[in-house]
Amino acid sequence: MSAPPFIWPSRIRFVDTDASTRIHYTALFRHFEAAEEEFFRQLGFPYTELERAERSYPRVHVEADYSGALKADDAIETHVALERVGRSSFTLRFRTYKDGVEAGKGKITAVCMSVATQKAEPLPVALAEALRRYLVE
Amino acid sequence: MSAPPFIWPSRIRFVDTDASTRIHYTALFRHFEAAEEEFFRQLGFPYTELERAERSYPRVHVEADYSGALKADDAIETHVALERVGRSSFTLRFRTYKDGVEAGKGKITAVCMSVATQKAEPLPVALAEALRRYLVE
Amino acid sequence: MSAPPFIWPSRIRFVDTDASTRIHYTALFRHFEAAEEEFFRQLGFPYTELERAERSYPRVHVEADYSGALKADDAIETHVALERVGRSSFTLRFRTYKDGVEAGKGKITAVCMSVATQKAEPLPVALAEALRRYLVE
Amino acid sequence: MSAPPFIWPSRIRFVDTDASTRIHYTALFRHFEAAEEEFFRQLGFPYTELERAERSYPRVHVEADYSGALKADDAIETHVALERVGRSSFTLRFRTYKDGVEAGKGKITAVCMSVATQKAEPLPVALAEALRRYLVE
Repeated sequence: MSAPPFIWPSRIRFVDTDASTRIHYTALFRHFEAAEEEFFRQLGFPYTELERAERSYPRVHVEADYSGALKADDAIETHVALERVGRSSFTLRFRTYKDGVEAGKGKITAVCMSVATQKAEPLPVALAEALRRYLVE
Repeated sequence: MSAPPFIWPSRIRFVDTDASTRIHYTALFRHFEAAEEEFFRQLGFPYTELERAERSYPRVHVEADYSGALKADDAIETHVALERVGRSSFTLRFRTYKDGVEAGKGKITAVCMSVATQKAEPLPVALAEALRRYLVE
Repeated sequence: MSAPPFIWPSRIRFVDTDASTRIHYTALFRHFEAAEEEFFRQLGFPYTELERAERSYPRVHVEADYSGALKADDAIETHVALERVGRSSFTLRFRTYKDGVEAGKGKITAVCMSVATQKAEPLPVALAEALRRYLVE
Repeated sequence: MSAPPFIWPSRIRFVDTDASTRIHYTALFRHFEAAEEEFFRQLGFPYTELERAERSYPRVHVEADYSGALKADDAIETHVALERVGRSSFTLRFRTYKDGVEAGKGKITAVCMSVATQKAEPLPVALAEALRRYLVE
Protein backbone atom coordinates (compact mmCIF):
# COMPACT_ATOMS: atom_id res chain seq x y z
CA MET A 1 0.00 0.00 0.00
CA SER A 2 1.41 3.32 -0.96
CA ALA A 3 1.80 6.42 1.19
CA PRO A 4 -0.50 9.37 0.56
CA PRO A 5 0.99 12.00 -1.76
CA PHE A 6 3.33 14.59 -0.29
CA ILE A 7 1.58 17.98 -0.16
CA TRP A 8 3.32 21.32 -0.66
CA PRO A 9 1.41 24.59 -0.21
CA SER A 10 2.50 27.71 -2.06
CA ARG A 11 1.12 30.89 -3.59
CA ILE A 12 0.99 32.16 -7.13
CA ARG A 13 3.22 35.24 -7.18
CA PHE A 14 2.93 38.29 -9.38
CA VAL A 15 6.05 37.22 -11.27
CA ASP A 16 4.24 33.96 -12.10
CA THR A 17 1.54 35.76 -14.07
CA ASP A 18 1.54 37.17 -17.59
CA ALA A 19 -0.46 39.71 -19.57
CA SER A 20 -3.38 37.27 -19.78
CA THR A 21 -3.68 38.12 -16.04
CA ARG A 22 -3.36 34.38 -15.32
CA ILE A 23 -0.32 32.24 -14.56
CA HIS A 24 2.26 31.89 -17.32
CA TYR A 25 2.48 28.21 -18.12
CA THR A 26 6.19 27.97 -17.30
CA ALA A 27 5.62 29.31 -13.78
CA LEU A 28 3.72 26.21 -12.70
CA PHE A 29 6.96 24.27 -13.18
CA ARG A 30 8.62 26.46 -10.54
CA HIS A 31 5.93 25.39 -8.08
CA PHE A 32 6.39 21.75 -9.11
CA GLU A 33 10.13 22.14 -8.49
CA ALA A 34 9.68 23.59 -5.01
CA ALA A 35 7.27 20.75 -4.20
CA GLU A 36 9.78 18.23 -5.54
CA GLU A 37 12.65 19.62 -3.50
CA GLU A 38 10.60 19.57 -0.32
CA PHE A 39 9.36 16.06 -1.12
CA PHE A 40 12.96 14.82 -1.38
CA ARG A 41 13.88 16.59 1.85
CA GLN A 42 11.11 14.93 3.86
CA LEU A 43 12.06 11.64 2.20
CA GLY A 44 15.47 12.06 3.83
CA PHE A 45 17.26 12.76 0.55
CA PRO A 46 17.66 16.49 0.03
CA TYR A 47 19.12 17.16 -3.42
CA THR A 48 22.22 18.73 -1.96
CA GLU A 49 23.11 15.38 -0.41
CA LEU A 50 22.20 13.38 -3.48
CA GLU A 51 24.58 15.54 -5.44
CA ARG A 52 27.37 15.26 -2.94
CA ALA A 53 27.33 11.59 -3.95
CA GLU A 54 28.58 12.63 -7.40
CA ARG A 55 25.28 12.03 -9.08
CA SER A 56 22.97 14.49 -10.76
CA TYR A 57 19.37 14.05 -11.82
CA PRO A 58 18.73 15.83 -15.12
CA ARG A 59 15.19 15.92 -16.45
CA VAL A 60 14.66 14.07 -19.72
CA HIS A 61 10.93 14.65 -20.04
CA VAL A 62 8.49 17.15 -18.54
CA GLU A 63 4.87 17.88 -19.26
CA ALA A 64 1.95 19.80 -17.82
CA ASP A 65 -1.75 20.28 -18.35
CA TYR A 66 -3.64 23.40 -17.33
CA SER A 67 -7.28 23.12 -16.46
CA GLY A 68 -7.96 26.11 -14.21
CA ALA A 69 -7.12 29.77 -14.31
CA LEU A 70 -4.56 30.48 -11.58
CA LYS A 71 -4.16 34.13 -10.63
CA ALA A 72 -1.76 36.20 -8.55
CA ASP A 73 -2.01 35.51 -4.83
CA ASP A 74 -3.98 32.27 -5.26
CA ALA A 75 -3.13 29.76 -2.55
CA ILE A 76 -2.41 26.38 -4.10
CA GLU A 77 -1.44 22.89 -2.95
CA THR A 78 0.75 20.64 -5.03
CA HIS A 79 0.54 16.89 -4.46
CA VAL A 80 3.62 14.85 -5.32
CA ALA A 81 3.58 11.11 -5.99
CA LEU A 82 5.56 8.63 -8.07
CA GLU A 83 4.25 7.33 -11.35
CA ARG A 84 7.20 5.08 -12.05
CA VAL A 85 10.45 4.08 -10.37
CA GLY A 86 12.81 2.42 -12.83
CA ARG A 87 16.37 1.15 -12.61
CA SER A 88 18.00 4.49 -13.28
CA SER A 89 15.12 6.90 -13.64
CA PHE A 90 11.86 7.89 -12.00
CA THR A 91 8.74 9.81 -12.96
CA LEU A 92 7.22 12.22 -10.48
CA ARG A 93 3.58 13.14 -10.77
CA PHE A 94 2.22 16.53 -9.68
CA ARG A 95 -1.36 17.63 -9.10
CA THR A 96 -2.01 21.27 -8.22
CA TYR A 97 -5.23 22.22 -6.47
CA LYS A 98 -6.87 25.55 -5.72
CA ASP A 99 -9.75 25.46 -3.26
CA GLY A 100 -9.79 21.69 -3.62
CA VAL A 101 -10.23 21.78 -7.40
CA GLU A 102 -7.49 20.57 -9.73
CA ALA A 103 -6.03 23.52 -11.65
CA GLY A 104 -3.02 21.83 -13.22
CA LYS A 105 -1.03 18.65 -13.28
CA GLY A 106 2.29 17.45 -14.61
CA LYS A 107 5.04 14.87 -14.78
CA ILE A 108 8.78 15.00 -14.66
CA THR A 109 11.11 12.13 -15.58
CA ALA A 110 14.60 12.44 -14.14
CA VAL A 111 17.58 10.17 -14.80
CA CYS A 112 20.28 9.34 -12.30
CA MET A 113 23.54 10.33 -13.93
CA SER A 114 27.13 9.92 -12.79
CA VAL A 115 28.79 13.32 -12.76
CA ALA A 116 32.12 11.71 -13.63
CA THR A 117 31.01 9.67 -16.65
CA GLN A 118 27.94 11.73 -17.62
CA LYS A 119 26.18 8.39 -18.09
CA ALA A 120 23.02 6.98 -16.54
CA GLU A 121 23.51 4.74 -13.56
CA PRO A 122 21.24 2.81 -11.19
CA LEU A 123 19.34 4.83 -8.61
CA PRO A 124 20.81 4.51 -5.13
CA VAL A 125 19.00 1.54 -3.53
CA ALA A 126 17.78 3.47 -0.49
CA LEU A 127 16.43 6.26 -2.67
CA ALA A 128 14.59 3.86 -4.98
CA GLU A 129 13.01 2.16 -1.98
CA ALA A 130 11.91 5.43 -0.45
CA LEU A 131 10.43 6.59 -3.76
CA ARG A 132 8.54 3.32 -4.28
CA ARG A 133 6.48 4.01 -1.19
CA TYR A 134 4.87 6.90 -3.05
CA LEU A 135 3.99 4.95 -6.18
CA VAL A 136 0.41 5.50 -7.30
CA GLU A 137 -1.38 2.39 -8.46
CA MET B 1 2.62 19.62 -49.46
CA SER B 2 3.59 21.42 -46.33
CA ALA B 3 5.96 24.34 -45.93
CA PRO B 4 9.35 23.72 -44.32
CA PRO B 5 9.40 24.46 -40.58
CA PHE B 6 9.92 28.04 -39.47
CA ILE B 7 13.43 28.43 -38.01
CA TRP B 8 14.30 30.74 -35.12
CA PRO B 9 17.91 31.20 -34.02
CA SER B 10 18.72 32.17 -30.44
CA ARG B 11 21.36 31.72 -27.76
CA ILE B 12 21.30 30.03 -24.39
CA ARG B 13 21.80 32.83 -21.87
CA PHE B 14 23.41 32.63 -18.47
CA VAL B 15 19.99 33.10 -16.83
CA ASP B 16 18.85 29.98 -18.70
CA THR B 17 21.37 27.77 -16.89
CA ASP B 18 21.32 26.25 -13.40
CA ALA B 19 23.83 24.83 -10.97
CA SER B 20 24.19 21.69 -13.09
CA THR B 21 26.02 24.14 -15.47
CA ARG B 22 23.50 23.14 -18.16
CA ILE B 23 20.18 24.69 -19.18
CA HIS B 24 17.38 24.59 -16.61
CA TYR B 25 14.56 22.65 -18.18
CA THR B 26 12.06 25.52 -17.90
CA ALA B 27 14.34 27.85 -19.88
CA LEU B 28 13.90 25.88 -23.09
CA PHE B 29 10.23 26.90 -23.00
CA ARG B 30 11.28 30.56 -23.17
CA HIS B 31 13.11 29.79 -26.40
CA PHE B 32 10.09 27.88 -27.71
CA GLU B 33 7.94 30.90 -26.88
CA ALA B 34 10.19 33.35 -28.72
CA ALA B 35 10.20 30.99 -31.72
CA GLU B 36 6.41 30.72 -31.55
CA GLU B 37 5.91 34.49 -31.42
CA GLU B 38 8.19 35.04 -34.41
CA PHE B 39 6.48 32.19 -36.27
CA PHE B 40 3.10 33.89 -35.82
CA ARG B 41 4.55 37.22 -36.90
CA GLN B 42 5.93 35.88 -40.18
CA LEU B 43 2.60 34.06 -40.70
CA GLY B 44 0.98 37.50 -40.69
CA PHE B 45 -0.71 37.00 -37.31
CA PRO B 46 1.35 38.59 -34.57
CA TYR B 47 -0.18 37.78 -31.18
CA THR B 48 -0.86 41.42 -30.46
CA GLU B 49 -3.28 41.47 -33.40
CA LEU B 50 -4.85 38.14 -32.56
CA GLU B 51 -5.60 39.50 -29.13
CA ARG B 52 -7.01 42.75 -30.43
CA ALA B 53 -9.72 40.48 -31.86
CA GLU B 54 -10.87 39.68 -28.33
CA ARG B 55 -9.43 36.19 -28.35
CA SER B 56 -6.67 34.72 -26.27
CA TYR B 57 -4.76 31.50 -26.73
CA PRO B 58 -4.08 29.84 -23.37
CA ARG B 59 -1.92 26.73 -23.30
CA VAL B 60 -3.71 23.59 -22.15
CA HIS B 61 -0.83 21.17 -22.60
CA VAL B 62 2.93 21.54 -22.91
CA GLU B 63 5.73 19.03 -22.94
CA ALA B 64 9.42 18.80 -23.66
CA ASP B 65 12.16 16.22 -24.01
CA TYR B 66 15.81 16.94 -23.41
CA SER B 67 18.42 14.92 -25.26
CA GLY B 68 21.48 17.13 -25.28
CA ALA B 69 23.32 19.25 -22.77
CA LEU B 70 22.79 22.90 -23.64
CA LYS B 71 25.20 25.35 -22.02
CA ALA B 72 25.50 29.11 -21.64
CA ASP B 73 26.25 30.90 -24.91
CA ASP B 74 25.35 27.91 -27.10
CA ALA B 75 23.85 29.01 -30.42
CA ILE B 76 20.67 27.08 -31.10
CA GLU B 77 18.01 26.89 -33.79
CA THR B 78 14.40 26.11 -33.00
CA HIS B 79 12.22 24.68 -35.77
CA VAL B 80 8.49 25.32 -35.49
CA ALA B 81 5.84 23.23 -37.25
CA LEU B 82 2.24 22.20 -36.66
CA GLU B 83 1.38 18.78 -35.40
CA ARG B 84 -2.36 19.35 -35.41
CA VAL B 85 -4.82 22.09 -36.35
CA GLY B 86 -8.24 21.42 -34.86
CA ARG B 87 -11.46 23.37 -34.80
CA SER B 88 -10.60 25.51 -31.81
CA SER B 89 -7.08 24.44 -30.90
CA PHE B 90 -3.71 23.70 -32.44
CA THR B 91 -0.55 21.88 -31.42
CA LEU B 92 2.79 23.43 -32.23
CA ARG B 93 5.85 21.22 -32.47
CA PHE B 94 9.34 22.46 -31.62
CA ARG B 95 12.73 20.93 -32.41
CA THR B 96 15.84 22.62 -31.02
CA TYR B 97 19.19 21.95 -32.65
CA LYS B 98 22.74 22.77 -31.66
CA ASP B 99 25.38 22.31 -34.35
CA GLY B 100 22.80 20.42 -36.38
CA VAL B 101 22.11 17.87 -33.63
CA GLU B 102 18.76 17.76 -31.84
CA ALA B 103 19.16 18.84 -28.22
CA GLY B 104 15.52 19.16 -27.23
CA LYS B 105 12.00 19.06 -28.55
CA GLY B 106 8.54 19.94 -27.37
CA LYS B 107 4.87 20.51 -28.04
CA ILE B 108 2.39 23.15 -27.01
CA THR B 109 -1.38 22.89 -27.40
CA ALA B 110 -3.20 26.22 -27.31
CA VAL B 111 -6.93 26.80 -27.37
CA CYS B 112 -8.67 29.75 -28.99
CA MET B 113 -10.73 31.36 -26.26
CA SER B 114 -13.17 34.25 -26.35
CA VAL B 115 -12.04 36.87 -23.85
CA ALA B 116 -15.68 37.85 -23.25
CA THR B 117 -17.11 34.39 -22.55
CA GLN B 118 -13.88 32.66 -21.43
CA LYS B 119 -14.99 29.73 -23.58
CA ALA B 120 -13.31 27.97 -26.48
CA GLU B 121 -14.30 29.11 -29.92
CA PRO B 122 -13.35 28.21 -33.49
CA LEU B 123 -9.97 29.38 -34.72
CA PRO B 124 -10.24 32.34 -37.10
CA VAL B 125 -10.49 30.79 -40.59
CA ALA B 126 -7.53 32.68 -42.04
CA LEU B 127 -5.34 31.67 -39.10
CA ALA B 128 -6.32 28.01 -39.35
CA GLU B 129 -5.50 28.03 -43.05
CA ALA B 130 -2.14 29.65 -42.50
CA LEU B 131 -1.27 27.18 -39.76
CA ARG B 132 -2.28 24.18 -41.88
CA ARG B 133 0.47 24.97 -44.36
CA TYR B 134 2.96 24.03 -41.64
CA LEU B 135 1.41 20.70 -40.74
CA VAL B 136 3.94 17.89 -40.60
CA GLU B 137 2.80 14.64 -42.18
CA MET C 1 8.82 53.78 17.41
CA SER C 2 8.72 51.50 14.44
CA ALA C 3 7.69 47.85 14.29
CA PRO C 4 10.36 45.22 13.79
CA PRO C 5 10.82 44.20 10.14
CA PHE C 6 8.48 41.62 8.69
CA ILE C 7 10.35 38.32 8.19
CA TRP C 8 9.70 35.89 5.36
CA PRO C 9 11.48 32.52 5.23
CA SER C 10 12.09 30.79 1.91
CA ARG C 11 14.55 28.50 0.15
CA ILE C 12 16.82 28.99 -2.81
CA ARG C 13 15.47 26.65 -5.48
CA PHE C 14 17.39 24.93 -8.25
CA VAL C 15 15.72 27.22 -10.80
CA ASP C 16 17.18 30.17 -8.87
CA THR C 17 20.76 29.09 -9.58
CA ASP C 18 22.91 29.46 -12.67
CA ALA C 19 26.03 27.83 -14.09
CA SER C 20 28.18 29.63 -11.50
CA THR C 21 26.46 27.13 -9.12
CA ARG C 22 25.24 30.14 -7.08
CA ILE C 23 22.01 32.12 -7.27
CA HIS C 24 21.38 34.07 -10.46
CA TYR C 25 21.08 37.69 -9.44
CA THR C 26 17.56 38.08 -10.83
CA ALA C 27 16.27 35.21 -8.68
CA LEU C 28 16.77 37.15 -5.46
CA PHE C 29 14.10 39.56 -6.70
CA ARG C 30 11.60 36.69 -6.80
CA HIS C 31 12.28 36.09 -3.11
CA PHE C 32 11.92 39.83 -2.42
CA GLU C 33 8.59 39.76 -4.24
CA ALA C 34 7.25 36.83 -2.24
CA ALA C 35 8.34 38.59 0.96
CA GLU C 36 6.66 41.80 -0.21
CA GLU C 37 3.38 40.08 -1.02
CA GLU C 38 3.28 38.36 2.36
CA PHE C 39 4.21 41.61 4.07
CA PHE C 40 1.24 43.35 2.47
CA ARG C 41 -1.04 40.47 3.38
CA GLN C 42 -0.15 40.58 7.09
CA LEU C 43 -0.50 44.38 6.92
CA GLY C 44 -4.12 43.77 5.97
CA PHE C 45 -3.65 44.93 2.38
CA PRO C 46 -3.15 41.96 0.08
CA TYR C 47 -2.32 43.17 -3.43
CA THR C 48 -5.44 41.57 -4.86
CA GLU C 49 -7.52 43.94 -2.74
CA LEU C 50 -5.38 46.96 -3.44
CA GLU C 51 -5.91 46.32 -7.13
CA ARG C 52 -9.63 45.84 -6.79
CA ALA C 53 -9.58 49.52 -5.81
CA GLU C 54 -8.54 50.37 -9.37
CA ARG C 55 -5.00 51.18 -8.43
CA SER C 56 -1.81 49.44 -9.45
CA TYR C 57 1.67 49.78 -7.99
CA PRO C 58 4.29 49.63 -10.75
CA ARG C 59 7.94 49.62 -9.75
CA VAL C 60 9.91 52.65 -10.87
CA HIS C 61 13.23 51.73 -9.29
CA VAL C 62 14.76 48.50 -8.03
CA GLU C 63 18.23 47.64 -6.84
CA ALA C 64 20.10 44.86 -5.10
CA ASP C 65 23.50 44.12 -3.63
CA TYR C 66 24.94 40.63 -3.31
CA SER C 67 27.39 39.93 -0.55
CA GLY C 68 27.17 36.19 0.01
CA ALA C 69 27.07 33.15 -2.20
CA LEU C 70 23.57 31.67 -2.06
CA LYS C 71 23.27 28.10 -3.28
CA ALA C 72 20.46 25.68 -4.11
CA ASP C 73 18.49 24.55 -1.08
CA ASP C 74 19.85 27.29 1.20
CA ALA C 75 17.29 28.37 3.76
CA ILE C 76 17.04 32.16 3.84
CA GLU C 77 15.10 34.83 5.68
CA THR C 78 14.11 38.08 4.05
CA HIS C 79 13.41 41.08 6.30
CA VAL C 80 11.06 43.72 4.92
CA ALA C 81 10.92 47.31 6.17
CA LEU C 82 10.08 50.73 4.77
CA GLU C 83 12.78 53.17 3.81
CA ARG C 84 10.41 55.89 2.70
CA VAL C 85 6.67 56.50 2.54
CA GLY C 86 5.86 59.45 0.29
CA ARG C 87 2.65 60.98 -0.95
CA SER C 88 2.17 58.61 -3.88
CA SER C 89 5.09 56.23 -3.62
CA PHE C 90 7.00 54.11 -1.13
CA THR C 91 10.37 52.42 -0.95
CA LEU C 92 10.59 48.93 0.53
CA ARG C 93 13.88 47.70 1.92
CA PHE C 94 14.88 44.03 1.89
CA ARG C 95 17.65 42.26 3.78
CA THR C 96 18.23 38.57 3.08
CA TYR C 97 20.05 36.47 5.65
CA LYS C 98 21.47 32.96 5.56
CA ASP C 99 22.46 31.47 8.91
CA GLY C 100 22.13 34.93 10.41
CA VAL C 101 24.59 36.51 7.98
CA GLU C 102 23.44 39.05 5.39
CA ALA C 103 23.76 37.57 1.90
CA GLY C 104 21.91 40.21 -0.07
CA LYS C 105 19.84 43.33 0.21
CA GLY C 106 17.69 45.49 -2.00
CA LYS C 107 15.16 48.25 -2.45
CA ILE C 108 12.05 48.65 -4.51
CA THR C 109 10.22 51.92 -5.14
CA ALA C 110 6.61 51.53 -6.21
CA VAL C 111 4.22 54.24 -7.27
CA CYS C 112 0.48 54.26 -6.66
CA MET C 113 -1.13 54.63 -10.05
CA SER C 114 -4.76 55.01 -11.07
CA VAL C 115 -5.62 52.25 -13.53
CA ALA C 116 -8.12 54.59 -15.23
CA THR C 117 -5.84 57.58 -15.78
CA GLN C 118 -2.47 55.76 -15.71
CA LYS C 119 -1.26 58.63 -13.53
CA ALA C 120 0.25 58.66 -10.07
CA GLU C 121 -2.14 59.33 -7.24
CA PRO C 122 -1.89 59.60 -3.45
CA LEU C 123 -1.46 56.37 -1.52
CA PRO C 124 -4.66 55.29 0.23
CA VAL C 125 -4.48 56.88 3.71
CA ALA C 126 -4.90 53.62 5.61
CA LEU C 127 -2.17 51.98 3.57
CA ALA C 128 0.25 54.86 4.09
CA GLU C 129 -0.36 54.73 7.83
CA ALA C 130 0.18 51.00 8.00
CA LEU C 131 3.40 51.26 5.99
CA ARG C 132 4.74 54.08 8.17
CA ARG C 133 4.81 51.76 11.16
CA TYR C 134 7.61 49.84 9.42
CA LEU C 135 9.77 52.85 8.62
CA VAL C 136 13.39 52.33 9.57
CA GLU C 137 15.03 55.31 11.21
CA MET D 1 37.12 59.53 -27.38
CA SER D 2 34.85 56.68 -26.56
CA ALA D 3 33.12 54.31 -28.94
CA PRO D 4 29.37 54.63 -29.42
CA PRO D 5 27.35 52.28 -27.19
CA PHE D 6 26.85 48.71 -28.33
CA ILE D 7 23.23 48.23 -29.43
CA TRP D 8 21.26 45.01 -28.99
CA PRO D 9 17.76 44.65 -30.44
CA SER D 10 15.26 42.29 -28.84
CA ARG D 11 11.53 41.85 -28.25
CA ILE D 12 9.46 41.78 -25.11
CA ARG D 13 8.08 38.24 -24.90
CA PHE D 14 4.84 37.11 -23.35
CA VAL D 15 6.78 35.45 -20.53
CA ASP D 16 8.29 38.87 -19.76
CA THR D 17 4.89 40.35 -18.89
CA ASP D 18 2.78 40.08 -15.75
CA ALA D 19 -0.85 40.59 -14.81
CA SER D 20 -0.44 44.37 -15.05
CA THR D 21 -0.22 43.58 -18.82
CA ARG D 22 3.16 45.31 -18.85
CA ILE D 23 6.68 43.92 -18.41
CA HIS D 24 7.53 42.43 -15.02
CA TYR D 25 10.43 44.41 -13.67
CA THR D 26 12.73 41.39 -13.39
CA ALA D 27 12.31 40.59 -17.10
CA LEU D 28 14.15 43.72 -18.18
CA PHE D 29 17.26 42.23 -16.54
CA ARG D 30 17.06 39.27 -18.92
CA HIS D 31 17.23 41.70 -21.83
CA PHE D 32 20.15 43.50 -20.18
CA GLU D 33 21.90 40.15 -19.80
CA ALA D 34 21.44 39.18 -23.44
CA ALA D 35 22.76 42.63 -24.45
CA GLU D 36 25.73 42.19 -22.10
CA GLU D 37 26.62 38.77 -23.46
CA GLU D 38 26.50 40.00 -27.05
CA PHE D 39 28.51 43.08 -26.10
CA PHE D 40 31.28 40.89 -24.69
CA ARG D 41 31.20 38.68 -27.76
CA GLN D 42 31.71 41.56 -30.19
CA LEU D 43 34.42 42.88 -27.86
CA GLY D 44 36.27 39.62 -28.54
CA PHE D 45 35.69 38.26 -25.02
CA PRO D 46 32.71 35.93 -24.99
CA TYR D 47 31.96 34.87 -21.42
CA THR D 48 32.65 31.24 -22.21
CA GLU D 49 36.28 32.18 -22.92
CA LEU D 50 36.60 34.49 -19.95
CA GLU D 51 35.51 31.61 -17.77
CA ARG D 52 37.86 29.14 -19.36
CA ALA D 53 40.55 31.37 -17.83
CA GLU D 54 39.38 30.29 -14.35
CA ARG D 55 37.70 33.56 -13.57
CA SER D 56 34.07 34.31 -12.98
CA TYR D 57 32.28 37.65 -12.90
CA PRO D 58 29.60 37.67 -10.21
CA ARG D 59 27.35 40.69 -9.94
CA VAL D 60 27.70 42.66 -6.71
CA HIS D 61 25.22 45.43 -7.51
CA VAL D 62 22.38 45.79 -9.97
CA GLU D 63 19.73 48.43 -10.40
CA ALA D 64 17.10 49.52 -12.86
CA ASP D 65 14.65 52.36 -13.44
CA TYR D 66 11.45 51.99 -15.39
CA SER D 67 10.04 54.99 -17.19
CA GLY D 68 7.88 53.53 -19.93
CA ALA D 69 5.28 50.80 -20.17
CA LEU D 70 6.77 47.92 -22.15
CA LYS D 71 4.26 45.40 -23.49
CA ALA D 72 4.37 41.97 -25.10
CA ASP D 73 5.83 42.01 -28.61
CA ASP D 74 7.34 45.49 -28.27
CA ALA D 75 10.56 45.81 -30.24
CA ILE D 76 13.28 47.35 -28.07
CA GLU D 77 16.91 48.34 -28.37
CA THR D 78 19.29 48.12 -25.46
CA HIS D 79 22.40 50.31 -25.51
CA VAL D 80 25.41 49.08 -23.53
CA ALA D 81 28.24 51.30 -22.33
CA LEU D 82 30.70 51.39 -19.45
CA GLU D 83 30.18 53.67 -16.53
CA ARG D 84 33.33 52.63 -14.71
CA VAL D 85 36.28 50.29 -15.25
CA GLY D 86 38.15 49.66 -12.01
CA ARG D 87 41.04 47.44 -11.06
CA SER D 88 38.96 44.33 -10.44
CA SER D 89 35.43 45.39 -11.27
CA PHE D 90 33.44 47.23 -13.88
CA THR D 91 30.02 48.85 -14.10
CA LEU D 92 27.97 48.37 -17.24
CA ARG D 93 25.25 50.87 -18.11
CA PHE D 94 22.12 49.93 -20.02
CA ARG D 95 19.55 52.13 -21.74
CA THR D 96 16.50 50.48 -23.28
CA TYR D 97 14.56 52.33 -25.97
CA LYS D 98 11.24 51.68 -27.63
CA ASP D 99 10.52 53.71 -30.76
CA GLY D 100 13.47 55.92 -29.87
CA VAL D 101 12.11 56.78 -26.42
CA GLU D 102 13.86 55.56 -23.26
CA ALA D 103 11.66 53.03 -21.45
CA GLY D 104 14.14 51.74 -18.89
CA LYS D 105 17.74 51.92 -17.81
CA GLY D 106 20.04 50.08 -15.46
CA LYS D 107 23.50 49.32 -14.15
CA ILE D 108 25.35 46.17 -13.26
CA THR D 109 28.60 46.01 -11.33
CA ALA D 110 30.53 42.78 -11.78
CA VAL D 111 33.71 41.73 -9.99
CA CYS D 112 36.47 39.63 -11.50
CA MET D 113 36.88 36.65 -9.18
CA SER D 114 39.35 33.78 -9.22
CA VAL D 115 37.42 30.52 -9.31
CA ALA D 116 40.22 28.83 -7.33
CA THR D 117 40.47 31.34 -4.47
CA GLN D 118 36.95 32.84 -4.69
CA LYS D 119 38.64 36.22 -4.22
CA ALA D 120 38.61 39.34 -6.36
CA GLU D 121 41.50 39.76 -8.72
CA PRO D 122 42.57 42.33 -11.31
CA LEU D 123 40.68 42.37 -14.58
CA PRO D 124 42.66 40.82 -17.44
CA VAL D 125 44.57 43.73 -19.02
CA ALA D 126 43.23 43.18 -22.52
CA LEU D 127 39.67 43.05 -21.23
CA ALA D 128 40.06 46.24 -19.19
CA GLU D 129 41.45 48.04 -22.24
CA ALA D 130 38.62 46.86 -24.47
CA LEU D 131 36.03 47.91 -21.91
CA ARG D 132 37.57 51.35 -21.47
CA ARG D 133 36.83 52.19 -25.08
CA TYR D 134 33.14 52.15 -24.14
CA LEU D 135 33.40 54.44 -21.13
CA VAL D 136 30.85 57.21 -21.15
CA GLU D 137 32.16 60.62 -20.12
